[in-house]
Amino acid sequence: MNIGFFNGEFIDINKAVIPIDERGHQFGDGVYEVVKTYHSVPLLLDEHLERFEKSATAIHIRLPYKKAELKSIIVEGIERAGLENAEVYFQVTRGIAPRNHLFPDVPPSFTLTVKPARKIAERNYESGVQTIIVEDDRWAKCHIKSLNLLPNILAKQNAVNSGNFEAIYEKDGFIAEGTSSNVFVVKNAVLYTTPLTSNILPGITREAILQIAKEEGIESKEERFTKDFLMNADEAFISSTSVEVLPIRTVDGQIIGSGNPGEMTKKLHQLFKGLC
Amino acid sequence: MNIGFFNGEFIDINKAVIPIDERGHQFGDGVYEVVKTYHSVPLLLDEHLERFEKSATAIHIRLPYKKAELKSIIVEGIERAGLENAEVYFQVTRGIAPRNHLFPDVPPSFTLTVKPARKIAERNYESGVQTIIVEDDRWAKCHIKSLNLLPNILAKQNAVNSGNFEAIYEKDGFIAEGTSSNVFVVKNAVLYTTPLTSNILPGITREAILQIAKEEGIESKEERFTKDFLMNADEAFISSTSVEVLPIRTVDGQIIGSGNPGEMTKKLHQLFKGLC
Repeated sequence: MNIGFFNGEFIDINKAVIPIDERGHQFGDGVYEVVKTYHSVPLLLDEHLERFEKSATAIHIRLPYKKAELKSIIVEGIERAGLENAEVYFQVTRGIAPRNHLFPDVPPSFTLTVKPARKIAERNYESGVQTIIVEDDRWAKCHIKSLNLLPNILAKQNAVNSGNFEAIYEKDGFIAEGTSSNVFVVKNAVLYTTPLTSNILPGITREAILQIAKEEGIESKEERFTKDFLMNADEAFISSTSVEVLPIRTVDGQIIGSGNPGEMTKKLHQLFKGLC
Repeated sequence: MNIGFFNGEFIDINKAVIPIDERGHQFGDGVYEVVKTYHSVPLLLDEHLERFEKSATAIHIRLPYKKAELKSIIVEGIERAGLENAEVYFQVTRGIAPRNHLFPDVPPSFTLTVKPARKIAERNYESGVQTIIVEDDRWAKCHIKSLNLLPNILAKQNAVNSGNFEAIYEKDGFIAEGTSSNVFVVKNAVLYTTPLTSNILPGITREAILQIAKEEGIESKEERFTKDFLMNADEAFISSTSVEVLPIRTVDGQIIGSGNPGEMTKKLHQLFKGLC
C-alpha cells in the first residue's frame, strides 16, 4: 500500500496536510530525495541521506531529523508499505508560514511517501531510449536537489510529446545532464561523464557507476564533452535512481553506435544490479 | 480577517487542504499573482489577471476559472476579509497527482489568500533603501511569474542579512530586475528601465509607471543599462505591487545621486498613488 508521512506521523497518503501558506507550495522552497528499495532494502541510503543534508544546508534549511531518525522513519515507512520494490520520496521545506520571501522563524516541514517503484518498460533496456538535446534553461545551482523543478518538467514533457524518453541539457556548448538523469558516453572503451560542478546533480547512481568502473579496471574520465562527442559515441546511457543504467538509442533522431545497447552499458547495468 | 480559498470554496486560511503529492508542493509547478487593494478596490486587476493567464499558458496550465469568475472570487474574498488595504495572493498549480515529472491528467488547483497589505515602513520612502547587485542565477524564463522562487528567496534573504532591502540581478553585464521588483533609473531627466525580455517579469507597476511618464511628457527609454550606469544615476527606484515606487538610496554601499529620493521618483510615486 501507499504510505504518507508528515511532520512526525504516518498518514494516509491522500490526506490534506499542507495549508496554502507553505514554503514548498508557494516557493518550491525545499529539497528532496528519491530512494529505491530492492528486496525491501533501500539502496545506497547513506549516500542519499548525505546528499539530502548537503542540499538542505546549501539553502539554509536545518533538517528536523538526525540521520539515524530519518533512517528509522524510512525503514518504518517501507515496512508499513509492505513493498519489496518501493520508491521512497522525501522532502523538506522551510515550513508553514504566512507568505513572505524572507525566511520564516518556523520549523521546517518534512514529508515522505512510499509507493511501488515505477517500472521502466523492459523494451527500453532492450532497445535503448530516444533522447533530445535542449538548451539548459535552469538556474545556476543544479547541484542542489531542489523543488524548483518547473524547467525540468517542461523539458521532460516536451521530450515525451515528441516521442522521446528524456531531454538532455546542453549548457555553454557542453552536455550537462538529463532532466532527471546523468549522462554517460563510451568511446574507445573509455567511460566519460560530465564532471561535478554546479551545472549538474551529483547523482548517486552516477557515483556508483564510476565506482564500479574503477573496481572493474574500466578507464573513466569525468570530463566535459560536446553534443557532437555524444552523437559520435560508441555507446551512451543515462543513469538515475529510477532508471538505473538505461541505454540511449538516439540523440535528436541520430542513432548512437550500433543502435543496440552496447556491451559496456550492459555490463555496467549488470554490475549495478549486483549492488541491489 | 485573513481569508483562504481552495478549489471552489472559501476556507480558514490555516486549514490543511493540500496533500503531499501536489505539483506546487513538490515541483513549484504553477504560477501566481499578488494584487493590492486600496479602499477595498483591487488595483489594476485586469492587468494582473491577464498576466496570470499568460503565465499559466506559458507553462501549459489551463486556468480553472474564466476571468469573470476569477474576478468574482477575488471580490468576494476582499469583502469577506473586510479589509480596505488588502494583499490578494492567488496561484494555480498543475494539481494533485502522484509525483511524476510528466503532466498529470487532473484538474489544476487554485488557491487564494486575502490578508492585510504588508506595510513598507515610511522611512524607506523618506530615505530610500539600500540594495546590492548579485549575479542572476535564475532560470531563463523570468517573464513567467512561476512558483520556482528559490533563487529569489535566497538572494533577498542574503540582501536583508547584510542590511539591505533588495538584491538586484545583473545578467550578462546588464541590470535585469530585483528579486521581487523592477528597476528604474533617472539620468538627465530621462527615465530608463530594462526592456521586456525573458530576463525579467513584465511588472504591472512598471507598466503603470511607463504609462504615467508618457502622459506627463516624461521621456522614457526601455533600454538595457549597466551597473555602472545605475550607480551614476541621478535617481533610481524599484517598483512592484508591494512597494509601489520605492527610492534606492545605495547600490553596493554607494550613494545614488544626492542620496535623497529624487524629484522625479517622488513625482512618479505621487502620480501612481493617484491611480489607487
